[in-house]
Amino acid sequence: MSRISYIEDQVSWEEEFSFFCPVKVRFSETDMFGHLNNTIPFIYFEQARIEFFRDLGFMDEWIKPSSENMIVVADLQCDFLKQVYFNEQLRIYVKAGKIGNSSVDIHYMGKNEKDTTCFVGRGSIVQISKKTGKAAPWSAEWKEILENKLRESR
Amino acid sequence: MSRISYIEDQVSWEEEFSFFCPVKVRFSETDMFGHLNNTIPFIYFEQARIEFFRDLGFMDEWIKPSSENMIVVADLQCDFLKQVYFNEQLRIYVKAGKIGNSSVDIHYMGKNEKDTTCFVGRGSIVQISKKTGKAAPWSAEWKEILENKLRESR
Amino acid sequence: MSRISYIEDQVSWEEEFSFFCPVKVRFSETDMFGHLNNTIPFIYFEQARIEFFRDLGFMDEWIKPSSENMIVVADLQCDFLKQVYFNEQLRIYVKAGKIGNSSVDIHYMGKNEKDTTCFVGRGSIVQISKKTGKAAPWSAEWKEILENKLRESR
Amino acid sequence: MSRISYIEDQVSWEEEFSFFCPVKVRFSETDMFGHLNNTIPFIYFEQARIEFFRDLGFMDEWIKPSSENMIVVADLQCDFLKQVYFNEQLRIYVKAGKIGNSSVDIHYMGKNEKDTTCFVGRGSIVQISKKTGKAAPWSAEWKEILENKLRESR
Repeated sequence: MSRISYIEDQVSWEEEFSFFCPVKVRFSETDMFGHLNNTIPFIYFEQARIEFFRDLGFMDEWIKPSSENMIVVADLQCDFLKQVYFNEQLRIYVKAGKIGNSSVDIHYMGKNEKDTTCFVGRGSIVQISKKTGKAAPWSAEWKEILENKLRESR
Repeated sequence: MSRISYIEDQVSWEEEFSFFCPVKVRFSETDMFGHLNNTIPFIYFEQARIEFFRDLGFMDEWIKPSSENMIVVADLQCDFLKQVYFNEQLRIYVKAGKIGNSSVDIHYMGKNEKDTTCFVGRGSIVQISKKTGKAAPWSAEWKEILENKLRESR
Repeated sequence: MSRISYIEDQVSWEEEFSFFCPVKVRFSETDMFGHLNNTIPFIYFEQARIEFFRDLGFMDEWIKPSSENMIVVADLQCDFLKQVYFNEQLRIYVKAGKIGNSSVDIHYMGKNEKDTTCFVGRGSIVQISKKTGKAAPWSAEWKEILENKLRESR
Repeated sequence: MSRISYIEDQVSWEEEFSFFCPVKVRFSETDMFGHLNNTIPFIYFEQARIEFFRDLGFMDEWIKPSSENMIVVADLQCDFLKQVYFNEQLRIYVKAGKIGNSSVDIHYMGKNEKDTTCFVGRGSIVQISKKTGKAAPWSAEWKEILENKLRESR
């Protein structure tokens, strides 16, 4: 799987995941070719990412009306490795990657019940100020939380 | 089509429509049976309803942050008369039905390029106060706009 | 709640449900008003209906390529009783209603974690022949399964 | 915009597009932050890609039940440059990039009515055999069509 630019070594890349979110493939998520439509893993990524940030305590802060900051997605990508079908029970894994001043790279992996990796992905999210719309640096506390997560997984 | 409770006489019911919104069936909107998934007409209804209220001048008011009121959907229903397939070009018709103090019944009809009616529907929307969440009566001006629409179509 | 035509008495109507399917409201399912978009309960209904038919043993038959029959949705309706928000954990209840020769009415109820009913609905599904597209009567065996379900719930 | 790995020079990269597909942002495609949900551009990409392949004459072949081949998406990515809001009228541009034996890289660009680029993307699609599921090389004729498209745009 060396063709995927954000994965150096797949075995160690996979081992670094521990947090996951279960999802079940809905009928409405299949398309006329009988497969999971290829736009749906991005919906799963979003759901799993939100659970991940909720687990870190960030999400509750961002959705407060009084919060100065929010997050935006800067980019997203997905590599489709194996077809997924209606009613499959998937685990969507999430981990933090490279941490910037106001951004963090998030990596994703979707596994089926046979533990086969069906799709992988990544994308950068950026904390921005609600007022200015500009990048808002992580607080020291939050940066440490992210860095601890990253260390733990390695 | 007498089985549909909100349609007394289909010919005259259909003739009362004039406003419509064009939509094209997307690949992601089909399902593994090759048909338009049955949840999608409700997305089309929403889009067409919004265009309809935009045309009346109501929508721009509701989405203003300063607006005191907004709308909610009280109920929705759809009768599926003919299968719809990928890439079909549909017209989603909208008209006002029964007008209440703070609500209005909206009727819908989806026609394909052969002018065949593929699905029909209706649903009541209610204007509510953003503060209290309670029903907010139509202004005299808006009620007249709605009643004129209703008259015009008959 | 007498305004809902398919519910005679809400207490007994609610008590007749036992089968349910858990769903969690996704971020992508909210809209700019911060609510669950009103097209989404129909996606939940579909998912729960499929689980219900899977539980009865019907679904596995219908999705076999060798199966002579499939199902289509004849109509769908939903009454929205209470706003639903991001991340709520819902239970989508399903029960069989009136049974026809080749059709069955399906009723739905969505409850939140406080056991409040957020939306209710119903819709008829029809078994059709894949070849002819015409209604295909229930086998005696399947009709009995449906009737037993109906009896059990009362 | 040098941070985007698949764009060497943005001006020339943008100039190479000519084919586009108009889309209007639906209410159901916004999320509780009031923006176009970040999963939706992938739906737009799919729709525009299908129109592009239809224009080339490939799509009609693939969806024939008698067709030996079909296409699958190998990967997809999107860079979000500017927030998009409800009701915006977008043009989704598509062009062919690098052509492989059985695959082709597709590039995407979403522009709003002010001609501002809101998001860009790319992804590789692969022609596969319906029987074996393995990559099915382009016919000489189709390869020429793709190469002509690529040449025309430069």
